[in-house]
Amino acid sequence: MKTIRQDSPLNSADLVSTDANRRMVILTDGHSNPLTAKTACSVLRYCEHEVIAVLDTTAAGQTAEQLLGTGGKTPVIADLDSAPAAKTLLIGIAPPGGKIPVHWRPIIMDAISRGMNVLSGLHEFLAEDPEFAGAAATSGIELTDVRNNDEHDVANRIGLRPDCLRILTIGQDCCVGKMVVSIELTRALIARQNRAKFIATGQTGIMIAGEGCPIDCVVSDFISGAVEKQILAGQDHEVLCIEGQGSLAHPRYSAVTLGLLHGSMPHGMVLCYEAGRKAVHGMPDIGLTSLAVLKDAYESAANLMMPSQVIGIAMNSRLLSTRAAEDERNRVREEFQLPVCDVFRHGPAELSEAVLQLKQKIQSR
Amino acid sequence: MKTIRQDSPLNSADLVSTDANRRMVILTDGHSNPLTAKTACSVLRYCEHEVIAVLDTTAAGQTAEQLLGTGGKTPVIADLDSAPAAKTLLIGIAPPGGKIPVHWRPIIMDAISRGMNVLSGLHEFLAEDPEFAGAAATSGIELTDVRNNDEHDVANRIGLRPDCLRILTIGQDCCVGKMVVSIELTRALIARQNRAKFIATGQTGIMIAGEGCPIDCVVSDFISGAVEKQILAGQDHEVLCIEGQGSLAHPRYSAVTLGLLHGSMPHGMVLCYEAGRKAVHGMPDIGLTSLAVLKDAYESAANLMMPSQVIGIAMNSRLLSTRAAEDERNRVREEFQLPVCDVFRHGPAELSEAVLQLKQKIQSR
Repeated sequence: MKTIRQDSPLNSADLVSTDANRRMVILTDGHSNPLTAKTACSVLRYCEHEVIAVLDTTAAGQTAEQLLGTGGKTPVIADLDSAPAAKTLLIGIAPPGGKIPVHWRPIIMDAISRGMNVLSGLHEFLAEDPEFAGAAATSGIELTDVRNNDEHDVANRIGLRPDCLRILTIGQDCCVGKMVVSIELTRALIARQNRAKFIATGQTGIMIAGEGCPIDCVVSDFISGAVEKQILAGQDHEVLCIEGQGSLAHPRYSAVTLGLLHGSMPHGMVLCYEAGRKAVHGMPDIGLTSLAVLKDAYESAANLMMPSQVIGIAMNSRLLSTRAAEDERNRVREEFQLPVCDVFRHGPAELSEAVLQLKQKIQSR
Repeated sequence: MKTIRQDSPLNSADLVSTDANRRMVILTDGHSNPLTAKTACSVLRYCEHEVIAVLDTTAAGQTAEQLLGTGGKTPVIADLDSAPAAKTLLIGIAPPGGKIPVHWRPIIMDAISRGMNVLSGLHEFLAEDPEFAGAAATSGIELTDVRNNDEHDVANRIGLRPDCLRILTIGQDCCVGKMVVSIELTRALIARQNRAKFIATGQTGIMIAGEGCPIDCVVSDFISGAVEKQILAGQDHEVLCIEGQGSLAHPRYSAVTLGLLHGSMPHGMVLCYEAGRKAVHGMPDIGLTSLAVLKDAYESAANLMMPSQVIGIAMNSRLLSTRAAEDERNRVREEFQLPVCDVFRHGPAELSEAVLQLKQKIQSR
């Protein structure tokens, strides 16, 4: 995927894409819940100015805010006729296994025939689908598979700058908010005059930032090398906020998590979780590992490479009332003696403060 | 890769390929040291009856035993003219990054033009090389890339049989002998009337067994799923001896190691190391993590999924004298209070005994 960022006063600090020409319709048809449609939600949150509409035939007439809890008055439409100015169809979901829902095929074909580009983060590549690829060639449009990559370099551990602070978000589970915490933390550090950069490692982060590496789709031998390459490229910044993936205790994706942890060698980690979640996302029969066990597991695994510690906890409290969220925050603060916040509800100030303290500590060594 | 095993009295227990029709020449030209040419060494060790010659222009006239320390009187030749009966060229090395040495290209083209099939375990696929693919089509021969796979299924944790014992070899580093220990352990268990099966997870193991999954070449999201699939397919056996990969502390490959650990969910682990090695294989500036730290790290990581423990230690003592090996064995036994042996020097009896004790313990639960 080519870099589509353009510098601007607000976005100059390597945060989000500012390519207004994408003019996107986000496809979530029949899958418009915030967990499955997390790509849609995050693109709406950070790139709303580029989104014309959300397409969900089951909810046409609503606003994106009503349907997905974000995106303001962006309309939900039933077909592409309702968005004649659109130039891009963005596949807005991230289902387990990453496959395209069958009933979406005619919608995608319709978009292609209208001359729209299609942007997808699924494991199943549009460009390798003969029907889509043929239609795209006929229409002269671009099929962009964000997860497609040709990473074939191993990690080398050469050239890492000691004065560039690396902060990795880690999680109790998938879909707890690691990407959002990384972006909000970057934003808070920039607001405090630090040259910080968000490093995108997943399909949604890449769609937002306009660059990055889809590490869960890299061949296993090269995952740490692919991460290292991104770190080396970002070292002209003071702080790198690296988007975490999965969980060390996830039955499916723990390998991705460890490859990212060992490839990025963070000085500090921010542990993210969703308050109230009991089971692994998508695997209701498998209970979550406790935060305490996971904190130890992450620190032990990270320390196999270099000294690293959890410096704060990011709580996703979307399911809780204000009162319950406050109780939860106090309970977790008490248990871990660390900064704890929900980056939306409380803002990320406690976490950015913890990052700056670590930065000072490391620079004074 | 298609299954090429045929049952026979000695090999009926899922151990090694018995396809005499491969009639292989093993290419190690200029790379004939036991670590780089570990594929060659292991194929010679377990499939010597299928090997006609080793091709190394720098060592022609020697025997494989002289050149590589295994393979008996198998001759080392300088060109394919010296092996007119050969039907297969096997690429005998596993370099970091998995690329084909440039000066090997004419040798491979020569083999193809003679009508030989080519069998490779490298990351760089022969079948995707236009020159090789074109020549193969003209000659009507097969290019087999053992590492090529299309794994796209996540792990599900459904259908694992509690009465099928899973034993995983784990390592302090790459290239310490995990595959060999898995095979020797399988063989010892079969000799003691257990229905045991060797599960191959790397290119050399697959070439030997004639089946398996090259997990280091699976897309990261699907590595645990690919391993789980192999476990489910082998559960008609009493014991599965699963070939380990890499190390949890390896700067490049730890993701592969964790994906395999969490995908196979072993009841017991055998920790493998090479006595005397100080630095990570291929990364001379990076010291090895101690066995004690690694034992804890593997047990902690495994226990995120289910109870598991290290039940024995396999020492590769090829660099030591008999006396030094005995001292090392005693020292490690003392430190860990576990069975310790070199499966070649001492035989695998202590390890197979530990496996059978664990089997009894688990079946009596």
